[in-house]
Amino acid sequence: MSLIGALLGRPLANREFKERQIGAFEGVPAMGLDALGSSSYGPEAALAILIPLGAAGVSYIGYVMAPILALLAVLYVSYWQTIRAYPSNGGAYTVSKENLGVNGSLLAASALMVDYVLNVAVGISAGVAALVSAVPELHPYTLPLCLAVLILVTLMNLRGTLDAGRLFALPTYTFVFCFLLLIAMGCYAALASGGHPEPVVPPPPPGEAAEAVGLWTLLRAFSSGCTAMTGVEAVSNGVSAFREPHVKYGHRTLTAIVGILGVLLAGISYLVSMYGIAAMDQTQEGYQSVLSQLAGAIVGHGWFYYLSIGSVLCVLALSANTSFTDFPRMCRIVAEDGFLPASFAVVGRRLVFSVGILYLSASAGLLLIVFEGITDRLIPLFAIGAFMTFTMSQTGMVVHWYRELNRSPHDRGRKPLSLAINGAGAATTGLATAIIIATKFSEGAWITLLVIPAAMVLLKSIRRYYDDLAEQLRDDKPLALDKLKPPIIVVVTESWNKLTDKALSFALSISPDVCAVHLKALRGPDREEDEKTFLEQWQSDVEGPARAAGLTPPKLLMHDAQYRRLDVPLLAMVQELEDEHPDRPVAILIPDVVKQGWWQYFLHTHRARRIRSALLSRGGRRLVLMNIPWHLRPADSMATLEQELKSEVDHVREELRQTRTAGAR
Amino acid sequence: MSLIGALLGRPLANREFKERQIGAFEGVPAMGLDALGSSSYGPEAALAILIPLGAAGVSYIGYVMAPILALLAVLYVSYWQTIRAYPSNGGAYTVSKENLGVNGSLLAASALMVDYVLNVAVGISAGVAALVSAVPELHPYTLPLCLAVLILVTLMNLRGTLDAGRLFALPTYTFVFCFLLLIAMGCYAALASGGHPEPVVPPPPPGEAAEAVGLWTLLRAFSSGCTAMTGVEAVSNGVSAFREPHVKYGHRTLTAIVGILGVLLAGISYLVSMYGIAAMDQTQEGYQSVLSQLAGAIVGHGWFYYLSIGSVLCVLALSANTSFTDFPRMCRIVAEDGFLPASFAVVGRRLVFSVGILYLSASAGLLLIVFEGITDRLIPLFAIGAFMTFTMSQTGMVVHWYRELNRSPHDRGRKPLSLAINGAGAATTGLATAIIIATKFSEGAWITLLVIPAAMVLLKSIRRYYDDLAEQLRDDKPLALDKLKPPIIVVVTESWNKLTDKALSFALSISPDVCAVHLKALRGPDREEDEKTFLEQWQSDVEGPARAAGLTPPKLLMHDAQYRRLDVPLLAMVQELEDEHPDRPVAILIPDVVKQGWWQYFLHTHRARRIRSALLSRGGRRLVLMNIPWHLRPADSMATLEQELKSEVDHVREELRQTRTAGAR
Repeated sequence: MSLIGALLGRPLANREFKERQIGAFEGVPAMGLDALGSSSYGPEAALAILIPLGAAGVSYIGYVMAPILALLAVLYVSYWQTIRAYPSNGGAYTVSKENLGVNGSLLAASALMVDYVLNVAVGISAGVAALVSAVPELHPYTLPLCLAVLILVTLMNLRGTLDAGRLFALPTYTFVFCFLLLIAMGCYAALASGGHPEPVVPPPPPGEAAEAVGLWTLLRAFSSGCTAMTGVEAVSNGVSAFREPHVKYGHRTLTAIVGILGVLLAGISYLVSMYGIAAMDQTQEGYQSVLSQLAGAIVGHGWFYYLSIGSVLCVLALSANTSFTDFPRMCRIVAEDGFLPASFAVVGRRLVFSVGILYLSASAGLLLIVFEGITDRLIPLFAIGAFMTFTMSQTGMVVHWYRELNRSPHDRGRKPLSLAINGAGAATTGLATAIIIATKFSEGAWITLLVIPAAMVLLKSIRRYYDDLAEQLRDDKPLALDKLKPPIIVVVTESWNKLTDKALSFALSISPDVCAVHLKALRGPDREEDEKTFLEQWQSDVEGPARAAGLTPPKLLMHDAQYRRLDVPLLAMVQELEDEHPDRPVAILIPDVVKQGWWQYFLHTHRARRIRSALLSRGGRRLVLMNIPWHLRPADSMATLEQELKSEVDHVREELRQTRTAGAR
Repeated sequence: MSLIGALLGRPLANREFKERQIGAFEGVPAMGLDALGSSSYGPEAALAILIPLGAAGVSYIGYVMAPILALLAVLYVSYWQTIRAYPSNGGAYTVSKENLGVNGSLLAASALMVDYVLNVAVGISAGVAALVSAVPELHPYTLPLCLAVLILVTLMNLRGTLDAGRLFALPTYTFVFCFLLLIAMGCYAALASGGHPEPVVPPPPPGEAAEAVGLWTLLRAFSSGCTAMTGVEAVSNGVSAFREPHVKYGHRTLTAIVGILGVLLAGISYLVSMYGIAAMDQTQEGYQSVLSQLAGAIVGHGWFYYLSIGSVLCVLALSANTSFTDFPRMCRIVAEDGFLPASFAVVGRRLVFSVGILYLSASAGLLLIVFEGITDRLIPLFAIGAFMTFTMSQTGMVVHWYRELNRSPHDRGRKPLSLAINGAGAATTGLATAIIIATKFSEGAWITLLVIPAAMVLLKSIRRYYDDLAEQLRDDKPLALDKLKPPIIVVVTESWNKLTDKALSFALSISPDVCAVHLKALRGPDREEDEKTFLEQWQSDVEGPARAAGLTPPKLLMHDAQYRRLDVPLLAMVQELEDEHPDRPVAILIPDVVKQGWWQYFLHTHRARRIRSALLSRGGRRLVLMNIPWHLRPADSMATLEQELKSEVDHVREELRQTRTAGAR
């Protein structure tokens, strides 16, 4: 309890929800790390495809990045509109659900879920890969490092969003500051030198050209470069996390994120071609990332270089955090629609959706383990989910504006423009998705394309289960109280002690028909003597007083459990009793000592628990199970709870008193 | 279920216990493997101490083995008497308990427990070490191989003793046959050649002598060689496992085991000095065990050599089995005296004491992992436990005969002789124990000497717990039935459905005072509407019918759980109700859907289970908990059980009918 308390912080009350909400300053680290982090692996992924073109490849980076920047602009205006139109949570799931129907929404949800998980895995593995190439001694520990970072991020998020937002602000703004400054210095040097800046630390020369420039290669580079845009949708999914007015802070955050990302991408690709920086093969000795070469070329290997590269490491590792903010929130919405288990909608002790966080963490951990924490192997799986979601969201918005126009044809306002913008968005992101699928299919994208429909099927069958459950539990009839009869009660006993006493008293207070079963297992040599003592005690301590009080004495059944299975005779007995009294419930009463310390689990045989679970699963619909707990020392009960949750306890007491007063009146 | 069934076999009924009992033929493999297996590492352990003496050391082996053989003879007559005097289980624990008091018996029990665990670890590691030196490619997998063998032996023993006895007979008797034949052939060759036999494959010459022969070295060799006797006590611990008459089959088995062991030890030490075979360092390349050198010298490396060495491997690995037969049986006796958790005395599905088996397996596994499966590191810990037990047992027998003599001083019979025999046994084994402690203390024996008293303290505190428990539960008063009052009932509801219906009907059938709590957690936007619907349904479907039936309508309490903790408001409520009604029990009724498939665990939030366990641990002594289970589909109930355990079910039905008939009369 105290360990969990130290790791996760004190429980938060519902009314503290407001205080947990964030503004734009915390919004950029909490929701923008994914998008900003992408700037460090997106251009590099594109350049990596151009390696075989040699020096010529580097000069083509402009042709690859220009459409990516255009696409980013389209996404910006599209999502600006989405945030305005859906000021609570306007994620792809909600937009698709409202405009494209159930199947559309489930496609969006599945694609998003895959995308979020991959974002965690790619972000962490890219960060660790950068760290490992900076400190080669750590190379053998790549996977453990990835998992350690994952656990750290998970714990932080279980503490809640605000803490995470504040905690991540420092590395995020350090990264933004360093690279904007680097780009400014680099551009000044490039312009001042007339397009031929002198690098402080010259980057290694590009390799020999192995093939000629072709459209297919450029398309593949474009597909890889598209990973630079993943995460732009994060703000629209999490609008309700902002403080009021949600839309204003959502727009501010979106503008800040896209603005910084655009400048970073444009600046990096301009300077890369100015300085002639090519990507290097990550599996080879002496590897340096593109950003590392660039920083070295502009400022050399001084303290500012290490500060910049350090901030890249942090931002990449923490970019996973965007998923942790949004994934549980989306899962909650999906769970409330019945497509995910109800536990995804349960708010944890720190007002976050703990199950979603843990599920995300486990899935990403699995991916990291399967792909051994290597970024290159994860990238081809990654972009598809994001671009499928973009497309679903944009298409949904097109339908949205179309319906709005039809609903009020005379008050058109800016709606035709909005329709056009989202239409253009849908067309371009759809085209990009098609290109990514075509160029990345054999490199691993097929896995994503298999997982998404499988996830859809799973979501649908979960919903079917809940529908079925509700149908089976629905009760249209009022309570039938005309033929209430007291239950038949069976008390399980082991010997005559305080437990049996409490159980029998209780049983006799609720029903005149009580019988007791004494189950005998294979035991030691004193067994027969024990039995005799027990029978004598039964007669003097139970049957006598019962007769004296004018009650039917409880019957006693001694049973020898041939297979040492105590549940079987009890089940057989329940069935017999149910057949005999078809109109009465049968209740089994199990007395048990309450374990108040962990060591007690080793000292008791857990007979009560085993009988209970066997009876629960096989006992049929008419059975009722009763536990008669017995505390060896008084329970600490409310003492500790009251300190922790005093207001809650007081509240309950007040409510109870009011109910009683109302009842008395 | 079916997996466990396939691994462990069908459940056995109590009446099948007789059929499980064994004779001398199965007794030797089941109880003698430990002792017989010792013959392969005992002489080698002694020779290993003599390595620094070079060729001279080999000639001294006779001086070391002679007292060991004498000790073996003393043990044989001593245990013969023990089996006769204690024809149920005459283990060191029982003998010490009856004659030396509680502390003596706990010392014996602790020493035995340590000894059994070490025997498993040493047996398996020695077997695997031999296998690994025969097939050097397996060397890196020493520890995994040890653990695999351990798991295999554990599973076999969970199936029951008889199966194990039969299964192990083949390798045991192969080993005995091969080595008796080898010794016969070797002795013939030695005698025929006038004491200078020509080896078929000559053993490597002994190393240079590094030190002179000294008494201390010989004592150390003797201590190591004493491991050859471990396991001789096994028969006396397990006499009740034999078929009737126990004593006859016990004596036969003891004679067979000690006879074979004696011939093996004498033969091996004679031939070792004849052929000049020295022990080799196990950590060095080209290592060969003493038995392997001996077999090679007598018959060369043909098929008979491989058969013999193969049987050594099997017997060593399976010698662990003796512990698996006896350890759980001893733990059962100790547990019935209240010094071990009660679960050690619970008979498993195959009529063996499963908890003891699993505990032994886990402890031995831990030892193997800590010592990396290296025999040499375990040997110094080993002999102490065994010799301490021998001493305790013999001392106990001395007291036994002394008392017998005092009880009937005129009918002395053979008692003075018996007293003398056990007295000699106690003195010699006590001396041997002292020598072992002195010579092995710094090599690891200190660990055993620390663990044994720690185990004694643990056993005593377990007994104190049970005494305390019995004291607290003891109930001298008869049932107090004069002021029985119906309980106050609190029904936990989530919505109006069949569960709530069943729960309320049941509650109203046992008490007039029922109230319902509707616990609301932080939920989606439709919450208020849901609440309204619920309130309306409550009025029409509950309050209305209750009034119509002339009952007090159940009160409804809507409660907002501020911290999403549903147990806290319930606990506060229970406390309020208990304060208000000091003379009535409070019962909480929790309806829940019964999970009938594993996948359902992911789909439900387990609210009922969490509430239940919180209430159990903190709810105080007056609380009663009721489960109202609801099955989505009819429970399979008796259908499958009846097939499996038909006789049991029929038996219960018959008993019930008889009770009813008796009650009707």
